[in-house]
Amino acid sequence: MENEIKKLLEDVKNGSISIDDALLRLKAQPFEDIGYAKVDFHRRARQGAAEIIYGESKTPEQIIGIINSMLKNNQKRILITRLSDEKAELIKKDFDLEYFSDAKIGIIGGFPEAENSKKIVIATGGTSDIPVAEEAALTASFLGNDVTRLYDVGVAGLHRLLSHFDEIMNAKVIIAIAGMEGALASVIGGLADCPVIAVPTSVGYGSSFEGLSALLSMLNSCASGVSVVNIDNGFGAGYLANMIVK
Amino acid sequence: MENEIKKLLEDVKNGSISIDDALLRLKAQPFEDIGYAKVDFHRRARQGAAEIIYGESKTPEQIIGIINSMLKNNQKRILITRLSDEKAELIKKDFDLEYFSDAKIGIIGGFPEAENSKKIVIATGGTSDIPVAEEAALTASFLGNDVTRLYDVGVAGLHRLLSHFDEIMNAKVIIAIAGMEGALASVIGGLADCPVIAVPTSVGYGSSFEGLSALLSMLNSCASGVSVVNIDNGFGAGYLANMIVK
Amino acid sequence: MENEIKKLLEDVKNGSISIDDALLRLKAQPFEDIGYAKVDFHRRARQGAAEIIYGESKTPEQIIGIINSMLKNNQKRILITRLSDEKAELIKKDFDLEYFSDAKIGIIGGFPEAENSKKIVIATGGTSDIPVAEEAALTASFLGNDVTRLYDVGVAGLHRLLSHFDEIMNAKVIIAIAGMEGALASVIGGLADCPVIAVPTSVGYGSSFEGLSALLSMLNSCASGVSVVNIDNGFGAGYLANMIVK
Amino acid sequence: MENEIKKLLEDVKNGSISIDDALLRLKAQPFEDIGYAKVDFHRRARQGAAEIIYGESKTPEQIIGIINSMLKNNQKRILITRLSDEKAELIKKDFDLEYFSDAKIGIIGGFPEAENSKKIVIATGGTSDIPVAEEAALTASFLGNDVTRLYDVGVAGLHRLLSHFDEIMNAKVIIAIAGMEGALASVIGGLADCPVIAVPTSVGYGSSFEGLSALLSMLNSCASGVSVVNIDNGFGAGYLANMIVK
Amino acid sequence: MENEIKKLLEDVKNGSISIDDALLRLKAQPFEDIGYAKVDFHRRARQGAAEIIYGESKTPEQIIGIINSMLKNNQKRILITRLSDEKAELIKKDFDLEYFSDAKIGIIGGFPEAENSKKIVIATGGTSDIPVAEEAALTASFLGNDVTRLYDVGVAGLHRLLSHFDEIMNAKVIIAIAGMEGALASVIGGLADCPVIAVPTSVGYGSSFEGLSALLSMLNSCASGVSVVNIDNGFGAGYLANMIVK
Amino acid sequence: MENEIKKLLEDVKNGSISIDDALLRLKAQPFEDIGYAKVDFHRRARQGAAEIIYGESKTPEQIIGIINSMLKNNQKRILITRLSDEKAELIKKDFDLEYFSDAKIGIIGGFPEAENSKKIVIATGGTSDIPVAEEAALTASFLGNDVTRLYDVGVAGLHRLLSHFDEIMNAKVIIAIAGMEGALASVIGGLADCPVIAVPTSVGYGSSFEGLSALLSMLNSCASGVSVVNIDNGFGAGYLANMIVK
Amino acid sequence: MENEIKKLLEDVKNGSISIDDALLRLKAQPFEDIGYAKVDFHRRARQGAAEIIYGESKTPEQIIGIINSMLKNNQKRILITRLSDEKAELIKKDFDLEYFSDAKIGIIGGFPEAENSKKIVIATGGTSDIPVAEEAALTASFLGNDVTRLYDVGVAGLHRLLSHFDEIMNAKVIIAIAGMEGALASVIGGLADCPVIAVPTSVGYGSSFEGLSALLSMLNSCASGVSVVNIDNGFGAGYLANMIVK
Amino acid sequence: MENEIKKLLEDVKNGSISIDDALLRLKAQPFEDIGYAKVDFHRRARQGAAEIIYGESKTPEQIIGIINSMLKNNQKRILITRLSDEKAELIKKDFDLEYFSDAKIGIIGGFPEAENSKKIVIATGGTSDIPVAEEAALTASFLGNDVTRLYDVGVAGLHRLLSHFDEIMNAKVIIAIAGMEGALASVIGGLADCPVIAVPTSVGYGSSFEGLSALLSMLNSCASGVSVVNIDNGFGAGYLANMIVK
Repeated sequence: MENEIKKLLEDVKNGSISIDDALLRLKAQPFEDIGYAKVDFHRRARQGAAEIIYGESKTPEQIIGIINSMLKNNQKRILITRLSDEKAELIKKDFDLEYFSDAKIGIIGGFPEAENSKKIVIATGGTSDIPVAEEAALTASFLGNDVTRLYDVGVAGLHRLLSHFDEIMNAKVIIAIAGMEGALASVIGGLADCPVIAVPTSVGYGSSFEGLSALLSMLNSCASGVSVVNIDNGFGAGYLANMIVK
Repeated sequence: MENEIKKLLEDVKNGSISIDDALLRLKAQPFEDIGYAKVDFHRRARQGAAEIIYGESKTPEQIIGIINSMLKNNQKRILITRLSDEKAELIKKDFDLEYFSDAKIGIIGGFPEAENSKKIVIATGGTSDIPVAEEAALTASFLGNDVTRLYDVGVAGLHRLLSHFDEIMNAKVIIAIAGMEGALASVIGGLADCPVIAVPTSVGYGSSFEGLSALLSMLNSCASGVSVVNIDNGFGAGYLANMIVK
Repeated sequence: MENEIKKLLEDVKNGSISIDDALLRLKAQPFEDIGYAKVDFHRRARQGAAEIIYGESKTPEQIIGIINSMLKNNQKRILITRLSDEKAELIKKDFDLEYFSDAKIGIIGGFPEAENSKKIVIATGGTSDIPVAEEAALTASFLGNDVTRLYDVGVAGLHRLLSHFDEIMNAKVIIAIAGMEGALASVIGGLADCPVIAVPTSVGYGSSFEGLSALLSMLNSCASGVSVVNIDNGFGAGYLANMIVK
Repeated sequence: MENEIKKLLEDVKNGSISIDDALLRLKAQPFEDIGYAKVDFHRRARQGAAEIIYGESKTPEQIIGIINSMLKNNQKRILITRLSDEKAELIKKDFDLEYFSDAKIGIIGGFPEAENSKKIVIATGGTSDIPVAEEAALTASFLGNDVTRLYDVGVAGLHRLLSHFDEIMNAKVIIAIAGMEGALASVIGGLADCPVIAVPTSVGYGSSFEGLSALLSMLNSCASGVSVVNIDNGFGAGYLANMIVK
Repeated sequence: MENEIKKLLEDVKNGSISIDDALLRLKAQPFEDIGYAKVDFHRRARQGAAEIIYGESKTPEQIIGIINSMLKNNQKRILITRLSDEKAELIKKDFDLEYFSDAKIGIIGGFPEAENSKKIVIATGGTSDIPVAEEAALTASFLGNDVTRLYDVGVAGLHRLLSHFDEIMNAKVIIAIAGMEGALASVIGGLADCPVIAVPTSVGYGSSFEGLSALLSMLNSCASGVSVVNIDNGFGAGYLANMIVK
Repeated sequence: MENEIKKLLEDVKNGSISIDDALLRLKAQPFEDIGYAKVDFHRRARQGAAEIIYGESKTPEQIIGIINSMLKNNQKRILITRLSDEKAELIKKDFDLEYFSDAKIGIIGGFPEAENSKKIVIATGGTSDIPVAEEAALTASFLGNDVTRLYDVGVAGLHRLLSHFDEIMNAKVIIAIAGMEGALASVIGGLADCPVIAVPTSVGYGSSFEGLSALLSMLNSCASGVSVVNIDNGFGAGYLANMIVK
Repeated sequence: MENEIKKLLEDVKNGSISIDDALLRLKAQPFEDIGYAKVDFHRRARQGAAEIIYGESKTPEQIIGIINSMLKNNQKRILITRLSDEKAELIKKDFDLEYFSDAKIGIIGGFPEAENSKKIVIATGGTSDIPVAEEAALTASFLGNDVTRLYDVGVAGLHRLLSHFDEIMNAKVIIAIAGMEGALASVIGGLADCPVIAVPTSVGYGSSFEGLSALLSMLNSCASGVSVVNIDNGFGAGYLANMIVK
Repeated sequence: MENEIKKLLEDVKNGSISIDDALLRLKAQPFEDIGYAKVDFHRRARQGAAEIIYGESKTPEQIIGIINSMLKNNQKRILITRLSDEKAELIKKDFDLEYFSDAKIGIIGGFPEAENSKKIVIATGGTSDIPVAEEAALTASFLGNDVTRLYDVGVAGLHRLLSHFDEIMNAKVIIAIAGMEGALASVIGGLADCPVIAVPTSVGYGSSFEGLSALLSMLNSCASGVSVVNIDNGFGAGYLANMIVK
């Protein structure tokens, strides 16, 4: 951005742009304003013209509007998270959308070739954490990574986790996903040498308080190298894992 | 108690006690009322004339009064918990008190011979949990048990815990004590075949919220056979362990 | 497990197994990996080839897959908890399932002969706590225990509880189940000589905060010998009661 | 009860009852055990053979069973709280039930003549608090009181409250019902000379946290003479008001 | 107040007061403004010229100023709550103050003759709750009541409470004071026929969360006729008890 | 009001009104009591005979009753907030209602001419906050203001916000609306010279805890000049903005 | 700022500044970096060269360093908030500091002439809220306002508040400061026509939870025109009041 | 570890180790058990024989014991966190300890040469966050990194942060440290392309609730690539940053 400003000032100096135009340019933004949203074209993924839409509380019309704005601006691959089955049905009518119901993720433009060998490991405490894990896994894949899935390896049966000792020791980053007491993050953090991204899930009942128990547990992990994202935030973990690996 | 009532009614019937006396007897209580406390002589420990005083918010004078009432009523061994160094000093002037500063426990009348071989295992996540562990250990010893201590075996270094695999598998009951994320209870619960009493501690900072994190974690343990007592309640765990073993 | 390792090493020494095979064996796990779950065959119940499935957030397909894996591995009796009516209907099509709608429990392979006379007492504060109580009772029965039910004996009408004084005094372990203020655990804990497993329930409204009130109340019980499991965790209480009795 | 015991002992003495029968009688309870409930006949209202059923989490069948048990035991008037429209419809088929949909209250046997002139005042902060207020009002009426209703007199329009200064000053007890910030209790408590029963309601949104805001506000009232019952507990307030007036 | 306004209007009509003076009078207040406080002379106690000062966060100078203003305005008896030993020492230099260190209460002008026989019963769960109980007891005595104290009758030893069955059944109002699990209020509420004022105390540790546990427990009491005041608010309970009795 | 009282007293003096009538008048209220509501005619908006109804938990019948009372009392323009689509449909049958489904706002009597040029700026962090923003915008418009909308300018893409630097610097008051981490308020507060009204929204998931995260964030803003209203309280922000501007 | 950029670009064009210098200028900041702080010279008060230092967790040496940096940069008047007595003593040695111990505020350079007549009213619920009120009052005075103080006018004695009806009706903005139940904000909000800034205080005990009770109460105010700042944030309220008035 | 096991099995096969010795070796642990701690020699840092001690709740004697055990086992460089001034004084008597009072960190064996150019950027919202930042900075330096410090760049003065745009854009990982509303993490996360480790601090008052506000804010960051560690956990952030960079 500094370079752009420098270039702009040089253009002003040598007269190839007027002062008013330069001022305008300084305020121009790399986004398109479509009323209910300011569609951003340089903020996020930046890998192979890929962009991301958070679908949760947007109407299908809004999502379609944003997709159109993106495609028009040359984004070839789009990831939509928190997309309900109903909205996916509607969007499929207009676009070539690949939809993963479990993870509530929709993808336009397909997955890229994975650039690297298996470096991101995604582990879950139980079967019920799989939807969050798949959100993380598909996000990481969409961003060009190869992912290893270790599901249902919770600490109440340590041998299930220890049987995957190799994968854990060879990972570049591990995403540990668990609800209830969330101990998986600490145990993996104690074994592994790489950064561990802990994702608390809302799986559980009673005093799990919708994921609060796992969240606090993970924040207080006695293992070093563990950091935490929001409850059920599989996307955030997958995105961050990609950042760390690259 | 039913037998006592039956005996009483028989006495009424055969005239060996008057109706008014019987009524009075029905209301008589096995405790001494010393104003600020109703000293109870049958409620708790009942092993070898042993009794327990919770010292936390009692004045030294109140504690001394209760001790006197107990001794007068033939309790030969007394355990005082949550006893500060200052109060212990004052009580030592009047009684032959054995004091454990780390555990804040005072004992009159000494420990009994342990009736059983090592069955109660007490494990802590870290060094800082030791005071709570000692409260549990001394309580269990006072009640006639032999105790195995496994300190600083937190889940961030699994090999430290696994090196004590034998003690864990042979225990009749395990007390798992940990602050921070409290994952120790789940991991031990997953390994052991016996009841696990989880004691969350207030060790930690920030989002451990004075033990809340470990408490929630332990309540949501995915391992079966785990139950929980109050934060820092080493006494309760030691007392319950004794109950289960006997 | 130590013995198995020793045997393995001996086999290596005398050449009856190759080094690579031994290494493989060391990493082999007594579970079957069916993708979404690692079905565990030695972790839990171990009484008469019995196994347990937590049905809450699993799909019917996943549950059926796990049942098949279990039956194939010689588990003859299976307990499924948190099983909705709808899922039960679907499973009944494939298996001989006994379903208890109140407790949301399904059982394959029936109940065993109870090994012991009435030792586990299950008490509830009110009528609304019965589903949790039945989850505990059926779990304990499934594990081979005879259970005494004392329902609707809350502390607001002490005479209802006191009329069952005999059962309480003769119990080996008592499960005290209550919502709202959860005082039942303390009152029973004060009367009984055996371990009391307290189960807070989400029964109540307003400041019961989905069971938080009863949970805190039970954790702070002034009666010794009381420990607590998660809100509405009838299964956990029944399972632990079985462990203590045996 | 003491008198009954005395009488019993006299009967034992003069031989008009055997010891075993006396023992049995001592353990006999003034309730009927119908399995899912122990229907209590002396615990509660005791005014004119009136009894109360908390309908919330009972099935229609259970409620009908309890009603039958009560009628059989000579309770002529029955109040059922937290009774949904659906359950009321079902019960109406078997009994002559007067149903108040707003307050979710059903009454069998009608209201008694009010014994006293208008002494209980029930005030609400807003229109939305009326269901809770009606639960209180109908309960108090059922117990034989005349009730004055002051609805929608919240503190944001003080003149609406002050226009009823006379009713407030002449009340024997006031029930102040409000959600949101719950300030009504303090303002009425500052004006009145009589006990004020504060009922926080779950009316509000956002940081009212389902009534927590009003609850805390009322507990911290700077006006003396104010006490608080559970969120939305109109019944409890009406019942207590009757107790205080009588 | 209505009468005063009517009188005022009549005076205006018959010319015995000018319009401006009447207007002034309407706005005149029965309090003295001493800068940091508006000392109120008609708001509270009104029994025998008695007044109350909440001493907590006032400086000794402020308290002395308020006392002087009260005495000057003919208040003969003054109750000061939450008065530390240090402040009491300073105030004693200027006034004839009777100080109760345990309850942190100071009294000027002494106690009145009790107007009624023992009607207010004050019960505590343990010895540690006594300071709060004494605040309640002294407040009630200051307002002219005779008080019965039942200390250390917690539910973990029911016989201690039941031995005072007579006092409980004959009370006009009972103040139930307890920390930890706060079950005392429910048990007493289930036994008694009169209003029960529940006072949670901050006695306890860990998950008692400074009284939150007892507070929630008491708010959710399954016994009818129970209402709650703030944590440790002995004064409020004593004041309200007096209101109900009178 | 003081003037009215003075006038009343003068009327008493000169005999143009009797004492009893004056007394009555003093107690008369500028509201109509329609049973379930006391419809207030001078409390709120007061701009061009406009009035406001909070529709949330009122029945359609109640809302219609209040509208009728208002119209009868000469209120020409009415704003109804939190009005569901269903209720709006019913009300449209009787009245000429303009309904905004997104904002859940209904308006009778239309919008006034805006009195001032663009002074109130309403900014949102994301697309999902728009319903709350529209509630604020329509309220402010209804009260006679011209509003500038800056939607989807969250801090994760600062350039989107900075591109509207002019609007921010020229505002008289800014309403900053955001869920999740609520940082928008601090960033705007740091840029702007005018008061900032922060509105946390319940947009988000997991540890946003229904808006708690944004609420706390905004309350702790390190920027001066920021104050906060309730979660999702767009109406309150719009109303207050109008007050500040005028 | 836009103008400055335009000017800069013009200078570039006409050659009066080099491109590199312009780039440097664009990045130059109106603050001085003194290592532990970046002292800001245009951010805040901007009235008469006045600046503000938040003294809470800064060392005396840091505060002195910041003062020196400010004076050197021509700030003539400085306000220091949250300044302990000890720190004030140290700072007085180097600077001419006016210190207000109650409000923990220190001022260098004195107060300006008040520009307007009494428009800001500051009201407190009790005597204990005065320190927070003085922080607000001194801040507003420092910024050039005349302030009216109404202390100890809590809602439990409405007549004390109503006796100041004139001040309330004539205010341009009111700061309502209260702890405990925080009802003052709603009552004043219901009376006044101007914006009300509510300041919850940590005054209270038990379930006031350090100000949480008052905070929630004020956020849920049923009166329109009320917004809230952080607990005990007198400075923020005084600063915002100045912003609104100007 | 797999290799070690393989080697062990080979040794068993070729008879160079006995079966019993192999079994023993399999259970041998790379830690020294000194009673109150199991000093771990391979778990953590592993860079240049460096080890870390968490000093918080350990006694000076325990810390000294652990240091001795480490030195004896060839650890040449030791980092001690949360070390109070008093403990540091005592330890200095025995060892050559470099102590940083602000960060509460002690170092034995000095800092290594930094292996990389400035890649880790540490930014704080205010001056008060510096102690936490220094804990992070010294930890990262101890692990061989060069650190760039950007202190007091909170979002309320965006220009202070933006003036360091270059450092932010060139970082490999950024540690964003802030209390109060914690918005710094989101703003930096929105600007930067690298992973951001957010550290909430307990700086603030009132509704910051000891760091809860910043914690929730950071967990809900709308910027991707942000993860969170415990409140005030500077060490954890520094340690993780090192892991990511390497």
